[in-house]
Amino acid sequence: MKRVLSGIQPSGKLHIGNYFGMMQPMIQHAKTEDLYVFIVDLHALTSVQDRDRLRQGTLEAAVDFLALGLDPDRCTFWVQSDVPEVCELTWLLSVLTPMGLLERCHAYKDKVAKSIPASHGLFSYPVLMAADILLYQSQVVPVGKDQKQHVEVARDIAIRFNNTYGETFVIPEPEISETTAIVPGIDGQKMSKSYNNTIPIFLDDKALRKRVMAIQTDAAPVEAPKNPETCNLYALLKLFAPPEKMQEVHDLYINGGAAYGYLKQDLFELISDYFAPARQRKEELLASPDYVRQVLARGAEKARIKATVTLDLVRDRMGLKY
Amino acid sequence: MKRVLSGIQPSGKLHIGNYFGMMQPMIQHAKTEDLYVFIVDLHALTSVQDRDRLRQGTLEAAVDFLALGLDPDRCTFWVQSDVPEVCELTWLLSVLTPMGLLERCHAYKDKVAKSIPASHGLFSYPVLMAADILLYQSQVVPVGKDQKQHVEVARDIAIRFNNTYGETFVIPEPEISETTAIVPGIDGQKMSKSYNNTIPIFLDDKALRKRVMAIQTDAAPVEAPKNPETCNLYALLKLFAPPEKMQEVHDLYINGGAAYGYLKQDLFELISDYFAPARQRKEELLASPDYVRQVLARGAEKARIKATVTLDLVRDRMGLKY
Repeated sequence: MKRVLSGIQPSGKLHIGNYFGMMQPMIQHAKTEDLYVFIVDLHALTSVQDRDRLRQGTLEAAVDFLALGLDPDRCTFWVQSDVPEVCELTWLLSVLTPMGLLERCHAYKDKVAKSIPASHGLFSYPVLMAADILLYQSQVVPVGKDQKQHVEVARDIAIRFNNTYGETFVIPEPEISETTAIVPGIDGQKMSKSYNNTIPIFLDDKALRKRVMAIQTDAAPVEAPKNPETCNLYALLKLFAPPEKMQEVHDLYINGGAAYGYLKQDLFELISDYFAPARQRKEELLASPDYVRQVLARGAEKARIKATVTLDLVRDRMGLKY
Repeated sequence: MKRVLSGIQPSGKLHIGNYFGMMQPMIQHAKTEDLYVFIVDLHALTSVQDRDRLRQGTLEAAVDFLALGLDPDRCTFWVQSDVPEVCELTWLLSVLTPMGLLERCHAYKDKVAKSIPASHGLFSYPVLMAADILLYQSQVVPVGKDQKQHVEVARDIAIRFNNTYGETFVIPEPEISETTAIVPGIDGQKMSKSYNNTIPIFLDDKALRKRVMAIQTDAAPVEAPKNPETCNLYALLKLFAPPEKMQEVHDLYINGGAAYGYLKQDLFELISDYFAPARQRKEELLASPDYVRQVLARGAEKARIKATVTLDLVRDRMGLKY
């Protein structure tokens, strides 16, 4: 069983692209690996400087993941800032982090190029991320391609530390899931909040139906044969429909007879049914925020035990115990 | 009563320049102000990456200051890393610190120009220093001219935080003591470890005498009148000799008759006597390291109470309490 570490943004409004790209694999990891999942509120501060938005985002991220089936008894699930040891490790790693390593990071340069203010927090983000990873002696870090470089920074820092002070950190491996289904948005591009083309998971039926009906399709008439491979509606249906249903749909595409309007109605019903239990559960959890806080507090306690063991060792190695 | 904050390097070998430039004012502050003094082991990591050297340096700095009369019951005296809240505040301040503010800092540029490896710790040193200052709501920070810019960085960050999240931090003031006696080294330049011209405080008599005898003076014969204003031996004598003795010495300089050899012997005896109780006390403290650790643990506890109040407020303001 490997220790797998994943971070969750507290910035709300999960969509079905997140679900198939990140959450399903994570919930799978919780069943087979030693999963550590945390809500990255300290990272989020680099872009969210609004007290209430951050608080609500954090609680809602917890609610969403619990509602969608993350089992806090089968993983360690906490809020980043509830284990402040991560900040201490960030400083300790900083003294071993060459400036050049951070200056080469694309994510920072990209963000600044997009006119996001160049704060020191944004610049040193990879050091905090290295501390996240190394504090828990993580072996595997599933990340998107854009975050791969940051895992490499964590590896570099860990190797440098081990060389300077003796074997201390596990060297983590990035896990880039090439096989993850690419979920198209309603416009056919990759589903992404920044393209404003998402289908959010937690919508009421009216809003969900409206969103699904807005999926863009071509203008081919019902009776014309169509290519399922290039149709985003087809790709979305495939995520939710059972195989026998998909066989029918496939035949309609190939032979003619696929009516987009009807298929959208099918898709709407499938999505609505698929997430109905999670929506129900979310309502319940939102009504018991103290229960959610308890779950997170228990998670932080578990995480902190591991964090303390690592940090104790690091402090000793560096000479902070006098 | 103002809260005054001072940091002490754990890098040993205090000399009489440190004593008159920093320690005497500090011990004075302990009597009249609410003094917070800490040994900056987290900062020291940016240059000391040797476990035993750092541990010994930390303990020895504590011993030296206690031996020289810093009263831990009249101030708050602790080791920086024993209050890890400072690292948490460092991250929280980072997100509000513009990169430009740090990029303009001379100390970093100077160090890198001197071929000290450009680590992220070195670069972000002013943010940790700001956290040191702001965590304790310090009002006054006595610093050398070289550190004045870092106090200004702390002020900038505090103002920015207060503007973003509401009044939270006291805005600290640097205190540059222009009046501090400039203590010349044995070669007449300012006494400084980097010039290798110091007279260490904690030397045995033999080594101390040898060091004092090595003070450079001019070649004027005994009977010649001499200018006391330009003589480093005279300046050093003035720090230790009582006024009536200095009157005599002054007359000898003006009228002729000042014999450097005899005056050096006088200076040696004066220094030896002056620090005799501290040397004795240092021996005792070195023999009871556990007592020193207890004193520091008590100091950390006191400091932590203050730190927790500030950090609690900051966490709430930023939205980390969900």
